[in-house]
Amino acid sequence: MLAETLAEIRPADPRALADARAHQDRLTKPRGSLGALEDVAVRLAGAAGACPPPMPVPAALAIFAADHGVHAQGVSPWPQEVTVQMVANFLAGGAVANAFAAQSGASVTVVDVGVAADLPDAPSLLKHKIAYGTADLSTGPAMSVDQAVQALEAGISVARGLVEGGARCLITGDMGIANTTASAALVAAFTGHDPAEVTGHGTGIDEETHARKVAVVRRAIEVNDVATVGSQPSDALRVLAAVGGFEHAAIAGLILGGAACRVPVILDGVIAGAAALVAAALDPAAVDHCVAGHRSAEPGHAVALAALGLRPLVDLELRLGEGTGGLLAHPLVCAAVRVMHDVATFDSAGVSEKEN
Amino acid sequence: MLAETLAEIRPADPRALADARAHQDRLTKPRGSLGALEDVAVRLAGAAGACPPPMPVPAALAIFAADHGVHAQGVSPWPQEVTVQMVANFLAGGAVANAFAAQSGASVTVVDVGVAADLPDAPSLLKHKIAYGTADLSTGPAMSVDQAVQALEAGISVARGLVEGGARCLITGDMGIANTTASAALVAAFTGHDPAEVTGHGTGIDEETHARKVAVVRRAIEVNDVATVGSQPSDALRVLAAVGGFEHAAIAGLILGGAACRVPVILDGVIAGAAALVAAALDPAAVDHCVAGHRSAEPGHAVALAALGLRPLVDLELRLGEGTGGLLAHPLVCAAVRVMHDVATFDSAGVSEKEN
Repeated sequence: MLAETLAEIRPADPRALADARAHQDRLTKPRGSLGALEDVAVRLAGAAGACPPPMPVPAALAIFAADHGVHAQGVSPWPQEVTVQMVANFLAGGAVANAFAAQSGASVTVVDVGVAADLPDAPSLLKHKIAYGTADLSTGPAMSVDQAVQALEAGISVARGLVEGGARCLITGDMGIANTTASAALVAAFTGHDPAEVTGHGTGIDEETHARKVAVVRRAIEVNDVATVGSQPSDALRVLAAVGGFEHAAIAGLILGGAACRVPVILDGVIAGAAALVAAALDPAAVDHCVAGHRSAEPGHAVALAALGLRPLVDLELRLGEGTGGLLAHPLVCAAVRVMHDVATFDSAGVSEKEN
Repeated sequence: MLAETLAEIRPADPRALADARAHQDRLTKPRGSLGALEDVAVRLAGAAGACPPPMPVPAALAIFAADHGVHAQGVSPWPQEVTVQMVANFLAGGAVANAFAAQSGASVTVVDVGVAADLPDAPSLLKHKIAYGTADLSTGPAMSVDQAVQALEAGISVARGLVEGGARCLITGDMGIANTTASAALVAAFTGHDPAEVTGHGTGIDEETHARKVAVVRRAIEVNDVATVGSQPSDALRVLAAVGGFEHAAIAGLILGGAACRVPVILDGVIAGAAALVAAALDPAAVDHCVAGHRSAEPGHAVALAALGLRPLVDLELRLGEGTGGLLAHPLVCAAVRVMHDVATFDSAGVSEKEN
């Protein structure tokens, strides 16, 4: 399924990009006056291969949940069982992601790709559990390459299912106590940055814990020999397996699946940024189908976005995950695309153009 | 009407502020993890005097349109008739503000406070014309103090009418070719900044025009003797009359009217920022009821926001006006408030808290 999906992905369509830029300049507004939103609309036109691009509605949020063996290293102040407790909170509609999804009219699907507990059935829970959490990435590979591919394919399958169900925009979400540690390791491995530059304070840790977290990420890079990543997709899979999490793999799969279906994917924070680096290593054209929802407070996120060449839409010091930053960006993306559909041109509205 | 409105305005309620902060910390999310959105929710609680604050829906955009005598100085490459043409575009639903309003479910009301032409009747056009444009602010006062008060009261009256009609959030909008020149003069007068620091490129001018615009603003400050503003509301009225526009006065009135009704006001760009300085000079407590929608590309806007102590929510290099930045921020404000209503607490959801 992975190979077929990669074969389906196309880069941005140059003609749709050019048409969209030209259309922007005919609309009744000063040229360039919508700033970064003009770029978003043009980007979605290129991704869809159509100008104007379709409205990215309805949106579907997929929250991939998993646990992490590295939690044992004391990198998070939160007990591991918070992962399963928060899954229950999502399913009951009580989390911030639910509130934001309600605000933007997005559906919420929770996907168990590796929670360290058995979960009861629930209508919006999909079960793709690969294992009861990853192994400790600071002592060896977090998962096997086979498991990484399984998790990637779970993400692809979720993307295809959501698109078949009518979704026209996918939003990445995650839940997994300690997953900013794996994110930092992925960002360090894929960008060559030092672990100290890309390891942050997660959802809130003290300086002692932060120092330990940096050391753990450094050890993970060394133990797994992923300090420099080659240019082959097989290298990407090896890095993902070595220092990633099941949710990172599945989000990379969601991105590839969305790109293959030509449905845009709004990325949330650092977990999605790290996953997008995996997707980009597997096929750089996948990034053409992504929009960076926001920039989180995690330093590794800015590094990942720079490496991906993406500009975040929302920058409000969020550090929650769950898809919250992606959900906040969704109405902005809709507004950008709606301009392409609704706004009059200088000719049609009889508005005079600038004199110069 | 102005005096009565000023007498009704109350500052943020300290108890509601404290309750909102405490409630934020009980919700199932790491403390502070919603960044600037937590501050917005707390701010709206203080403004409403209630925790949680009411959802700011439905929203109403009021676009105040007017012309400017200073246009004769060649400060804009756009012909003055674009003001009246864009009013027609708003009323026909063809402008970017209409597309963004449709996206956030906001109504659009256009208010003529000083367009230099007679406008035909239209269902969503309110006529409060003070004059056919202001006088040239670089050769003397743009308007009389009486006219400034008339325009302020037009804005108050629009605010009260929209709230009576059911609006629970007001968004400021503007249309007026050359109105960034008046904005720069207001910002310079109220903050003491040099005209060169607060005068920008508007919707797009070359360097020669920009140099002329800075010189015009400098002359306006000197001719009208408004380089330093005193602490009395009467000084604020004199400055507004000297270098403002009818739309600036009316937007200041909208802010005061919203504050008096305890309905939050989302500010758009530099025109709203300059108007908010007027409102703040008349009553500093009015600012407690404002949210800065975005930061525009105009340098005077960042200066105004800093003077007001407001942090913008959207920062995407927009420079369009019309209320577009305020409209984009509306779903973010809604999301922030919705968290206070919908999200479970650690206790209610059975989620473990952080260990430390």
